[in-house]
Amino acid sequence: MFREKQGINVHISHRVVGLFPNEWTIQVHDLIKDKEFSIQYDELMLATGARPFRPELDGIDSENIYDVNSVVNGTRLKEALAKDRPASVVVVGGGYIGIEVVEALHLLGIKVTLLQRGKQIMSAVDSDIAEVLTQAMIEDGIDVRLNEGLVGFEYSGGRVTAVVTNMGRIPTDCVVLGLGVLPRSELAQDAGIILGPKGTIEVNNRQQTSVSGVWAGGDCAQAMNVVSGEPGFYAMGTIANKQGRVAGLNLGGKDAIFPGVVGTAITKFNQMECARTGLGEKELESLGIEYVVGKVDGVTKPRYYPGSAMMKVKVYAERGSGKMLRAQIVGGPGAGKRIDTAATALHAGFSMDDMLYLDLAYAPPFSGVWEPLVIAARLAEKQI
Amino acid sequence: MFREKQGINVHISHRVVGLFPNEWTIQVHDLIKDKEFSIQYDELMLATGARPFRPELDGIDSENIYDVNSVVNGTRLKEALAKDRPASVVVVGGGYIGIEVVEALHLLGIKVTLLQRGKQIMSAVDSDIAEVLTQAMIEDGIDVRLNEGLVGFEYSGGRVTAVVTNMGRIPTDCVVLGLGVLPRSELAQDAGIILGPKGTIEVNNRQQTSVSGVWAGGDCAQAMNVVSGEPGFYAMGTIANKQGRVAGLNLGGKDAIFPGVVGTAITKFNQMECARTGLGEKELESLGIEYVVGKVDGVTKPRYYPGSAMMKVKVYAERGSGKMLRAQIVGGPGAGKRIDTAATALHAGFSMDDMLYLDLAYAPPFSGVWEPLVIAARLAEKQI
Repeated sequence: MFREKQGINVHISHRVVGLFPNEWTIQVHDLIKDKEFSIQYDELMLATGARPFRPELDGIDSENIYDVNSVVNGTRLKEALAKDRPASVVVVGGGYIGIEVVEALHLLGIKVTLLQRGKQIMSAVDSDIAEVLTQAMIEDGIDVRLNEGLVGFEYSGGRVTAVVTNMGRIPTDCVVLGLGVLPRSELAQDAGIILGPKGTIEVNNRQQTSVSGVWAGGDCAQAMNVVSGEPGFYAMGTIANKQGRVAGLNLGGKDAIFPGVVGTAITKFNQMECARTGLGEKELESLGIEYVVGKVDGVTKPRYYPGSAMMKVKVYAERGSGKMLRAQIVGGPGAGKRIDTAATALHAGFSMDDMLYLDLAYAPPFSGVWEPLVIAARLAEKQI
Repeated sequence: MFREKQGINVHISHRVVGLFPNEWTIQVHDLIKDKEFSIQYDELMLATGARPFRPELDGIDSENIYDVNSVVNGTRLKEALAKDRPASVVVVGGGYIGIEVVEALHLLGIKVTLLQRGKQIMSAVDSDIAEVLTQAMIEDGIDVRLNEGLVGFEYSGGRVTAVVTNMGRIPTDCVVLGLGVLPRSELAQDAGIILGPKGTIEVNNRQQTSVSGVWAGGDCAQAMNVVSGEPGFYAMGTIANKQGRVAGLNLGGKDAIFPGVVGTAITKFNQMECARTGLGEKELESLGIEYVVGKVDGVTKPRYYPGSAMMKVKVYAERGSGKMLRAQIVGGPGAGKRIDTAATALHAGFSMDDMLYLDLAYAPPFSGVWEPLVIAARLAEKQI
């Protein structure tokens, strides 16, 4: 084995083109000098992240089509908005990122069309929860197109002039893609490292891959869901940070464990916040878990208190055991972040009975005496 | 034993003047007809609540001195404010209720003086946390008097004209008392029922008192702190509601358990929110628990995001085990209610290591990648 001299060598504009675990080396391409060389390692950390999904369509490389997965791409879009001043933008994809982009463009006074192939935005929440967010967008003037998918582009002179969908064509000045991300795991795959779900790199709870000396973390790696005990693909900055910490501690000789995720996510459009945690509909189905659902139409604060806003909460519990499986919130200011209480309860493996008696903060400016989350748990408990 | 006929008999304007557990009866005074009679019971629920503490001072019964512990008293104050239009009010007591009253009066354009005998407001939080809230009040024009206690009143014609303190006199049009509450447990005490801390009625986790057939719940009863395992006096509507539910279920033949409280509370003054959960300073001392503290000066949202506000978090953990003992938050909009995450973690018995990897909701409109609560836990963990 080769031991690199102390200190940190940073290689900018270098691409790793090969990983050879048997030789403890990586092959690197210097993009500026256009030459290749190899580097030996004792331990190798793969933190290659994810790439935005881009459909293979004619015109996809037009200059006025933007991804928003990185600071570089975000800056590119921001500069284009300032320079081109588009009157209209089509956002493709109604997930968290798509919705955040819709909000930002809308606040700039741009006419926004949101294109969503599926029957609802936010596929990670139930349709009745997503519907509340959709209505908030429509009421604010967003042209939300459900069941309408991107099939092509009309373009000329390197610029898209219209988006073509299964329903027709939408003339536009600019297109933003929010179609999700794919893990960058080709390097690992080519080296024979075992992959996990959806092309993520398989790792154990110390962030070790299947190959000795090679570690992975962040969007390129799988994460264990503590509710299901199954690995999944969770491309979230918070999780990447935590996995990076665990890998770093272990690389440095400590013994750190990443306990896993519960699938928490949050977004908003203007005043309407939406959050979820726990297992998804498909996971519940594929695991064959029988469940009950408690749903409440509540408020963020008592109705008599200024600023009280609607807040819908759904809690899923396992039939029989009453163990919490999933929670969703949609509502006005202050609603969304309360998902953290549910997320913490999922980490603790709490049942509906545990939820009922949580000593949560109460004062009229903040909540009612019974939190909507707790009321939903009570309604779920009755069906267990 | 006597079994009352089915149905509900409601006695308004009746006071219970005696409880005789050996005879399974209560003695009742009809305040309107001014006569006494007795009622037999199979099961008796004591839900007598708490009374506001009123110091025994000359002039305390002046008509312009107000308590704010009930809807009746609150309405009386509200009507007086509308009728008398006081230019200045002295609020006595800098706890949660005092602060809420200060805010409400201040928003009505009234000059408010807050009198606090102790060296800080909010004795349930650390002085550095309370100081942030105090400064917010002072900056907004509240005359906050620390180390200044009520010693008497100047009054004439049944109305207070000035509050006398250990530091001098404060002329005022109106006085609001926010000096805390005392459990109404005399009836139980006189009947030989065992009392718990601070004059609360001792109950088990089914809300049974020491005497067969007599139950208690709410502000008149003790509640078990799940962090310390010790009973205490927690006069909170949320806890009263939960204890009432448990007592009601048990009275109705079910078997419900109240697991206890963690000591969560929240208040705010205008934009500044303050919350706490877990053991108090004195409890930590009396239990002889050695602890470490993680403190972070964070923000509610990333600094680049509009509406980002300061947010200080302190987390206490047991030395050695790392078990969370206490958390406190003070900060701008959105800071306070995050105490629920810490409260849920206390219910779960989480350690600092558990806190580090909580999968909490992240998106820039809501928080940074690392929650201040988690950063504070990390800083505490380093000292364990």
